[in-house]
Amino acid sequence: MIGNVKLGILGGGQLGRMLIQAGIDLNLYTLILDPDADAPCKQLCNEFYHGSFADYETVYNFGKKCDLVTIEIEHVNCDALAQLKKEGVKVFPDPEVIRTIQDKGLQKEFYKKNNIPTADFRLLKDASELNANQDFLPAFQKLRTLGYDGRGVQKVTAETASEKIFTEPSVLEKLVDYEKEIAVICARNESGEIAVFPATELVFHPEFNLVDYLIAPANISEEVSKKAAELAKNVLEAFDMVGLLAVEMFLTKTGEVLVNEVAPRPHNSGHHTMKANFTSQFEQHLRAILNLPLGDTSQHSAAAMANLLGEPGYTGEAKYEGINETLEIPGVYLHLYGKKITKPARKMGHLTALAQTTAEAQAKAENARQNLKIIA
Amino acid sequence: MIGNVKLGILGGGQLGRMLIQAGIDLNLYTLILDPDADAPCKQLCNEFYHGSFADYETVYNFGKKCDLVTIEIEHVNCDALAQLKKEGVKVFPDPEVIRTIQDKGLQKEFYKKNNIPTADFRLLKDASELNANQDFLPAFQKLRTLGYDGRGVQKVTAETASEKIFTEPSVLEKLVDYEKEIAVICARNESGEIAVFPATELVFHPEFNLVDYLIAPANISEEVSKKAAELAKNVLEAFDMVGLLAVEMFLTKTGEVLVNEVAPRPHNSGHHTMKANFTSQFEQHLRAILNLPLGDTSQHSAAAMANLLGEPGYTGEAKYEGINETLEIPGVYLHLYGKKITKPARKMGHLTALAQTTAEAQAKAENARQNLKIIA
Repeated sequence: MIGNVKLGILGGGQLGRMLIQAGIDLNLYTLILDPDADAPCKQLCNEFYHGSFADYETVYNFGKKCDLVTIEIEHVNCDALAQLKKEGVKVFPDPEVIRTIQDKGLQKEFYKKNNIPTADFRLLKDASELNANQDFLPAFQKLRTLGYDGRGVQKVTAETASEKIFTEPSVLEKLVDYEKEIAVICARNESGEIAVFPATELVFHPEFNLVDYLIAPANISEEVSKKAAELAKNVLEAFDMVGLLAVEMFLTKTGEVLVNEVAPRPHNSGHHTMKANFTSQFEQHLRAILNLPLGDTSQHSAAAMANLLGEPGYTGEAKYEGINETLEIPGVYLHLYGKKITKPARKMGHLTALAQTTAEAQAKAENARQNLKIIA
Repeated sequence: MIGNVKLGILGGGQLGRMLIQAGIDLNLYTLILDPDADAPCKQLCNEFYHGSFADYETVYNFGKKCDLVTIEIEHVNCDALAQLKKEGVKVFPDPEVIRTIQDKGLQKEFYKKNNIPTADFRLLKDASELNANQDFLPAFQKLRTLGYDGRGVQKVTAETASEKIFTEPSVLEKLVDYEKEIAVICARNESGEIAVFPATELVFHPEFNLVDYLIAPANISEEVSKKAAELAKNVLEAFDMVGLLAVEMFLTKTGEVLVNEVAPRPHNSGHHTMKANFTSQFEQHLRAILNLPLGDTSQHSAAAMANLLGEPGYTGEAKYEGINETLEIPGVYLHLYGKKITKPARKMGHLTALAQTTAEAQAKAENARQNLKIIA
């Protein structure tokens, strides 16, 4: 199959870009659909289509040019994908899996139905239903669809409920008293082979409620690590997934592991695999959807990964300051996403620090990130 | 500088392709010049120019569009590069370095002048001069220019001299009674920082006179390894090189290390660094020519690399057989070059096997390569 596959990717952002980068080694022919005419993938793909991946006709017409369609974002038109599948185009992940995952309400109901441990929740049609659920507060309110990168999620308490409630359909999710947030990326190919990456740990900023670093492997016991891998595998199998699945989890103070949410594609929590693991998440996703044997997921180095965000106060053509100081630190590697325009907190790239221990890697990453500023 | 550099590469083959692949992370804008309209870089670069890199006007006009010009092959028009340099375009490696290296006669004289140990040699203007050098046989006769990948090199003995002598200007080089052939890749940036990769060992086919595998690190003593690294550094400094320099060496049976020849660019003997080392030779070349701090050259895994050649008897659109069987072997990674047409013995890709020891890696690579056939 390799060498002649026309692979379509819905979304031409950084995840698509790193997929193409990995796909070079497999000689893939790539087509990209993205609403941004200057998307990071534009110059690297074989064919670029400027258009909305939420639009039925656009996605359908795009998919008809491909042998195989995959995604780098969940917010795509699943009806078009379902039709393409019916007409013989391979679509991985399956359109029905994407449909379930893109709606956080369906996603939570899926976990419940499949006995996958997750935080208690209730579904709200609109803001008026909050009154009947005062007993459930405090809770997180999450928009059922189109939330992304922390948008569309807020904490609601009995005190704040009257003012800042989302009015669209949402999930009300019980706060979990957790020790850590971890993520496990796993993959399954069409033949059913499964491979699981070591868990990543999300390190939050001590002041702001923001992921500051990701370290891998997660600083958890062997036992918890096994439990998390097992849980990820269960979710993967419940979805009958083909491709990569990133499973975000809460590790509670009582040692339970709960699924928070999943993404059926390469994920921010797996970026370090490009430098720290024998097989990257991007190569693994391609192997999975091409039905190739999966690669070795183990790590050869401890790693810390930091996103490089656009500096607050700058919007415009991106400039990079402190690259030399950053790369001077041994074991620090840079990955820029080729975005022309920087905006405050826009993900412009990431850096990975490798070391013998995650503590050492994190110290390097902190040092490196302080040096680097993305301004306009 | 990063993010806005227009990098021109003379040559759009596999080396250019892997340079672009590494350059994605540094957000480079790439221009390629290649005489093949279907060159492997064509779809990945920002601008592709179809033309000869041996032609003055073509190279000059191409270079004028760039901030920085580098090469993936030595056989380029150095006069054009010298003029570009004069007009303020950065050219790394320096045009005069390329000029010396592209002529094996000048290269050998350079070693002599700089006290770099190398096999004895004589220069021949044409075939008629062979008579006066009968005392020097047996020897290798190497065309001074345009030899490539083993072409333009032959063994000449007193018996065969009358029939198969090259008539073009050539180097007659004394046979070296060597134990091993090794290669050391090193790099220097404009600021003068130097970094040296661990030595690679060329493993020859027991029957044919062909490199069969490259293993890294080379199976040599600590002492020889240091000597080889020191020698590579000396050559790098003698050339006042900016960029990557691959130094091929003979390790003689008496423990001497002699320079065979060099390439001022990424090299076949460094392909394993993409999977086995913390920094790949391609990223290192980019760091060097962009005057960025150089990356960690050390290996995290032992490696064996095998070129994937077009199967004898097949010419035409390439088809890949046995990909699944190849990737099923844990630690085996594939790198295809995106060449449309396969020919007998054409380099179509390479595979790298990683393991705890080079012996284990070599066994995996042998097994993997047996599975894979590139036919038409």
